[in-house]
Amino acid sequence: MNNFTYDISTVVHFGKGQIEKLGAEVAKRSGRVLMVYGGGSVKRNGVYDGAAAQLKAHGVAWVELSGVEPNPRINTVREGVRLCREEKLDGVLALGGGSVIDCAKGIAAGALYDGDPWDFPAGKAAPEQALPIFTVLTMAATGSEMDSIAVISNMDSHEKEAFSAPCCLPAVSILDPAYTCSLPASQTAAGTADIMSHTLENYFSPIETNYLADNMAEAILRACVHYGPKAIDTPDDYEARANLMWCASWAINGFLSMGKPVGWSVHRMEHELSAFYDVTHGVGLAILTPNWMRYVLSEQTEARFARYGEAVWDLDRSLPQREKAEAAIQKTRDFFSALGLPATLTEVGIDGTHFAEMARKARTANFDRTFVPLSTEDILEIYKMSL
Amino acid sequence: MNNFTYDISTVVHFGKGQIEKLGAEVAKRSGRVLMVYGGGSVKRNGVYDGAAAQLKAHGVAWVELSGVEPNPRINTVREGVRLCREEKLDGVLALGGGSVIDCAKGIAAGALYDGDPWDFPAGKAAPEQALPIFTVLTMAATGSEMDSIAVISNMDSHEKEAFSAPCCLPAVSILDPAYTCSLPASQTAAGTADIMSHTLENYFSPIETNYLADNMAEAILRACVHYGPKAIDTPDDYEARANLMWCASWAINGFLSMGKPVGWSVHRMEHELSAFYDVTHGVGLAILTPNWMRYVLSEQTEARFARYGEAVWDLDRSLPQREKAEAAIQKTRDFFSALGLPATLTEVGIDGTHFAEMARKARTANFDRTFVPLSTEDILEIYKMSL
Repeated sequence: MNNFTYDISTVVHFGKGQIEKLGAEVAKRSGRVLMVYGGGSVKRNGVYDGAAAQLKAHGVAWVELSGVEPNPRINTVREGVRLCREEKLDGVLALGGGSVIDCAKGIAAGALYDGDPWDFPAGKAAPEQALPIFTVLTMAATGSEMDSIAVISNMDSHEKEAFSAPCCLPAVSILDPAYTCSLPASQTAAGTADIMSHTLENYFSPIETNYLADNMAEAILRACVHYGPKAIDTPDDYEARANLMWCASWAINGFLSMGKPVGWSVHRMEHELSAFYDVTHGVGLAILTPNWMRYVLSEQTEARFARYGEAVWDLDRSLPQREKAEAAIQKTRDFFSALGLPATLTEVGIDGTHFAEMARKARTANFDRTFVPLSTEDILEIYKMSL
Repeated sequence: MNNFTYDISTVVHFGKGQIEKLGAEVAKRSGRVLMVYGGGSVKRNGVYDGAAAQLKAHGVAWVELSGVEPNPRINTVREGVRLCREEKLDGVLALGGGSVIDCAKGIAAGALYDGDPWDFPAGKAAPEQALPIFTVLTMAATGSEMDSIAVISNMDSHEKEAFSAPCCLPAVSILDPAYTCSLPASQTAAGTADIMSHTLENYFSPIETNYLADNMAEAILRACVHYGPKAIDTPDDYEARANLMWCASWAINGFLSMGKPVGWSVHRMEHELSAFYDVTHGVGLAILTPNWMRYVLSEQTEARFARYGEAVWDLDRSLPQREKAEAAIQKTRDFFSALGLPATLTEVGIDGTHFAEMARKARTANFDRTFVPLSTEDILEIYKMSL
């Protein structure tokens, strides 16, 4: 097991009605916050009213920034930074899913940074301090509620880039699975694919010496296979929603990658899809993941895929290893399809026009620590397989 | 899933040589600490020298309290409190295993409390504040390095009691598995049994709705079965030591009990063994656990034991449920024996003299949330089965 540091200090209040703890938690750390949200859904599902009542009850003032986009834009981050400075705010409260929370992270760090916040995703600067971040989660998917990562897009330059810094870890997150019971099937499906993709990125690593991390990854994947379809068939199945939500946080909060190198190959490739075409992150991942698996399957990697097949898809242990590995990949593809997710880029209106540029941009990330190192040509090939 | 709060803010530096991070971490929070340790082992295995060098290098002064007992005594806690006050110390650094860390927790809370620290284990007062606690772990067993629990003994009154408070969660723990490579087989075996017992106490709960917690528990148990014998056969097997150490922390840091009621039946019974006879905690647990399992096995509980048998002991799924449950219990007993642990109280010199009083004292704890509620007579019967 490689050395690592565990430091996940986010306080999570998990369960029905836990928003009642929000006001006291915010008031301990902030007096005037920027309340960040997306479209109108938080006004329909009670999250906005609940949060506003909590802030009022605990004497916390706030200013609002609404309209955060799926795949949040740097211009929205800049607007939030301006508001924090002008209104002298000392905290950021995100109401929403991963996009809203990522945007809040950019704002919280940008407010205490002298330059342009695009410097963070562009890799020109690392956030060293941030305003306290609070979240009320409305979707189980990105895990942003319990990690220090943010992904921000710049549509002018077709760039979608991530940054991560300890100061961007939320101080407090309210995880009430009941808020997700009103999500449409398409979002539940994309969220489930997102959770599984995060887990798979951690699971397929060049070394396997952290027994708990590997077994926890398999447990998260089995949970998604078990509860994802339940949540789609019966949207108000609380147990299904609760288990998906807790899995989402643990798929990417760092536990799965401790003690081993992790590469995030498929995410790097997917970010280019979103940057050029603004597709839903989970949909892009569901299309690319099985093709990435097929492409990297080899005599060297088939044992790991076979183990994945046994542990997650309950494949017969007596099958020959290669057959088991191939069956596991097909099961993955079939599962995403059963959730109603598209299987090809063509289905979501993407053709090969920009593949060469996308592959080149994706390859600017470090692919050296990945499960199987990929060249620009390899990435191009995986895009083509996904048409 | 029941509501819960996740708040595990201990910073863990895990791996070879991580003691090099100790000085800076302590200096951030404290200027003069009480260094607490047991016998001479920390002077032989390099922990004492490493910690002392770190404190010196970062300008942290210290006072020492050595000789902490296995099953730490309240008198030692009182002595530590006296030192903290007289020497105006502002932190407590524990070098050792669970006993030393538990003692440090009592001292850290007692130093900021007006009354006698026995009030905490006696349930007369709950710690509301404590000096910052730092640990350098030398044994994988109790998980005290990442939880807020302490168990303190009062040999005068034959009492061994636990207390728990958020302020007693260590601020920083150094987990270097290499320190455990010199442990004798008997301690490695007792530690492995302790980790498994913590996990089983969480696993056998009246409700099963937290998929991750249940699967993580099974993973920890499998890891113990896999790595425990390896660590005994090849004491310097770093991967085995590392996996056991990480499992120990996660068996009891709260993750396994989130969202469900947990009762700790066997621990309550074992505490009376230690209080009356000062047996090693892990040894007492290894003797009692299979007998508790046999006693609570019924038509109502056999499904859970059968699942345990499949997931942990790889039992044939096609076996009849009751048979599978019984086989799982026998596997548990056989495993502890294979580790070299005693199977009966008689082997450790305990007869039935005090059973009635022990059962009565054990039953003063709350047994209502346990997997199967137990009366004083039930507990007495389990003690008798263990002779």
